[in-house]
Amino acid sequence: MKFDENSKILIVGLGLIGGTYARALTEKGYEVGAIDVDEKAIEYALSKGWIKSGQTQVDKDYVGKFDVIVFAVYPHVFIDWIEKYQSFIKDGALVTDVTGVKGSVVYMVQKLLRSDVEFVGAHPMAGREVSGVEHANPAIFKGANYIVVPTDKNTSEGIEACKALGKELGFAKISVLTPEQHDEMAGFLSHLTHCIAVSLMVCKDSTHLASYTGDSFRDLTRIAKINDDMWSELFLLNKDELIAQMNLFEEHFDALKKCIETDDRDSIREMMRISTARRRVFDKDAKEKQ
Amino acid sequence: MKFDENSKILIVGLGLIGGTYARALTEKGYEVGAIDVDEKAIEYALSKGWIKSGQTQVDKDYVGKFDVIVFAVYPHVFIDWIEKYQSFIKDGALVTDVTGVKGSVVYMVQKLLRSDVEFVGAHPMAGREVSGVEHANPAIFKGANYIVVPTDKNTSEGIEACKALGKELGFAKISVLTPEQHDEMAGFLSHLTHCIAVSLMVCKDSTHLASYTGDSFRDLTRIAKINDDMWSELFLLNKDELIAQMNLFEEHFDALKKCIETDDRDSIREMMRISTARRRVFDKDAKEKQ
Repeated sequence: MKFDENSKILIVGLGLIGGTYARALTEKGYEVGAIDVDEKAIEYALSKGWIKSGQTQVDKDYVGKFDVIVFAVYPHVFIDWIEKYQSFIKDGALVTDVTGVKGSVVYMVQKLLRSDVEFVGAHPMAGREVSGVEHANPAIFKGANYIVVPTDKNTSEGIEACKALGKELGFAKISVLTPEQHDEMAGFLSHLTHCIAVSLMVCKDSTHLASYTGDSFRDLTRIAKINDDMWSELFLLNKDELIAQMNLFEEHFDALKKCIETDDRDSIREMMRISTARRRVFDKDAKEKQ
Repeated sequence: MKFDENSKILIVGLGLIGGTYARALTEKGYEVGAIDVDEKAIEYALSKGWIKSGQTQVDKDYVGKFDVIVFAVYPHVFIDWIEKYQSFIKDGALVTDVTGVKGSVVYMVQKLLRSDVEFVGAHPMAGREVSGVEHANPAIFKGANYIVVPTDKNTSEGIEACKALGKELGFAKISVLTPEQHDEMAGFLSHLTHCIAVSLMVCKDSTHLASYTGDSFRDLTRIAKINDDMWSELFLLNKDELIAQMNLFEEHFDALKKCIETDDRDSIREMMRISTARRRVFDKDAKEKQ
């Protein structure tokens, strides 16, 4: 297990995130290769110089060259790949991923994987409402968080290597969480918010309102443009946690509704004061402009 | 009823929006005066040259000088003012406002007001998460919508004068809605979204999560920093419409939850596809960058 300036890095899945890993690491001087079923994605990244080599097939000799393999594919594709092709991976290689759910992925992959290859889960908390390698841009990692999600099967060497990768990618903050902590956090901050945004767009045909809207509605629904294939998989893989977070949200939304129904202005104002105080912490943290 | 380049304009309430009206109209060459209980607000605007005169008291001779009066105060303050001081208003003056609810304000004010003074309701759909005249800046009106909300008591001359004011203020789009249409639109686009943002911040102490959050949670809760005094008044003044919109949202949020609980991936994906298609219209409309 090692990760240093001579490490050769393979990206499996050359979309927005995989492409951004490739571009960032190539710019840092690493030798980067890629596998993607889409030949155009490979050709595009080659033409930009973001990868040194690329393949559309999973080839034993090609895979075996790399010291670090990053999976930037859907969770089920990642698990299938490990089941089918793990024998191709070099002895002592580091395997990591970018998956937005951890509990239902990390334990499974660690159980499946050969003992001489270490898998350390990671979640780069960055993205855009567009997909595809052509939008790859390391700027999306600046100011963002990179979360390493180890289990007790991981070595401190492996965890440090995964952290070092996050640093090389340009993330502002590297954190460590357990799979359970990660999924609670992602369930609340990411999956719940996407459920809210989707529900808000679905609940009526508001397109005729587009010309009346201020920033509030636009902000709340920016993430309602969503990759249904990927996000439906994430939602279901984090189902129990997400349902718990949805229930929690509904409980408080109902409490506010009850206050409005009963003209309980004091309680409405108290909720707003709590909300204002808590939200300020996020401003401070993000150094948002006033 | 007239509004032309010689109109003298009085702003009642020199906060963020009133201050921005004052600044924008002074820059356009109008003579602008202001009344605000806070002497510092008046002094600030005078020192910046955003008003030509200002008072902290409601003075008969002062009020009587103006051809147009804009109320940029809380709804109950506006109604109280009309009850107490309407005799001070010049014959034939135009009265307008910036209030975010219309049904419970417009009819009441029109009922109270002398017949020789015309009130045309308006709602400038612009704002920021800060308050106070010191943040007044006509840039917030650029690209924003100005909604004129007449009733059958209004004259076409009054409506045109109110529209012309919106144009002079620099709004990108001037629309006309009935009070009922306005309140349904505001209930959905603005009041409901603020309820969601507040509920999301209140539902758990998420401050320890600040360092993990991506843009989604920040976007959804930007408006959770909220002026509790003003917004609790707006919520209650638009209570019936807001409760209807909250119920509508909950119905669809529950439907999504049910799909997740029952692993009904096809239905989740269908909701996401509807949401994505509808949200694209808002992008196009706002010419958001991809």
